[in-house]
Amino acid sequence: MVKLDFAKSADGLLPAIVQDAETGDVLMLAYINKESWSKTLETGKAHFWSRSRNKLWLKGESSGNVQLVKDIFVDCDQDTVVFKVEQLGGAACHKGYRSCFFRRVVDGELEVLGVPVFDPAEVYG
Amino acid sequence: MVKLDFAKSADGLLPAIVQDAETGDVLMLAYINKESWSKTLETGKAHFWSRSRNKLWLKGESSGNVQLVKDIFVDCDQDTVVFKVEQLGGAACHKGYRSCFFRRVVDGELEVLGVPVFDPAEVYG
Repeated sequence: MVKLDFAKSADGLLPAIVQDAETGDVLMLAYINKESWSKTLETGKAHFWSRSRNKLWLKGESSGNVQLVKDIFVDCDQDTVVFKVEQLGGAACHKGYRSCFFRRVVDGELEVLGVPVFDPAEVYG
Repeated sequence: MVKLDFAKSADGLLPAIVQDAETGDVLMLAYINKESWSKTLETGKAHFWSRSRNKLWLKGESSGNVQLVKDIFVDCDQDTVVFKVEQLGGAACHKGYRSCFFRRVVDGELEVLGVPVFDPAEVYG
C-alpha cells in the first residue's frame, strides 16, 4: 500500500481533494486517516474520516451518492491526495449541489452558482 | 471581506486548493490563515501560511512562480477554498513539476507522470 505521511498533522488526518474525473471540477475536500485510505484503495469507493461524527465515512452511505475512484494522485510531500471520481447521483455536496464549491467570490460577496441537484430534506430526511 | 470559518481548525488554518484556471488541473494544496486570506483578496496573488517556516508566504517569493488568482470559490462549510490561478513560470511544485500531484497510484505503487519544468537546485540555490 502507498504510504502517506499521516504524522504530518497532529490529528493524523490528511486532506483529500475530490475531483470529477471527466470535467476536472473540484467537487469537495474531506479528510482521510489510515483506515479510510486503506478502505478507499481496497474498495475503489471514496472513504473519509468524518470530523463531525468522528467515524469512518463511506461517502454516499446516507445519500447513495457514492464516489467511484478512477484515479489517485499523491503530492510531493505525501500529505495530500487527489481522488478522481465518478460521482454517482449527480451531486457531492450535502446541500444538494453538484460541487461543494458552488459559491464564487464576486466583489467581496459570495455569489451562488448553479442550482441544487437534489433536495437535502428529501435525501437526508 | 468574505468570512471563512477559521475557528474550524485548532491552528486557525484552512486548506486552499490551487487549480489551473485554464486546464482545471489541481496544482497544489496549501494552508491559509486570516492574514494570507486577506492578502490574497487584496493583491490578487496567492498567499498562504507556511507551516514549515511558520510565516506568511507569497507563493513564488523565492522561485518567481507567482500565482495570479483569477477566481475564488468557497465551499458549503466555509472552511475550504479553491483558487483558480494563472501559474507564472510554468510550475507550482517546489520539486520543479507543473503540479505537486505528479505521481499516480498504479498497482499499489507511485508512478511519476511527466517531467520537471525547472531544476529546483538552480531555482532555490
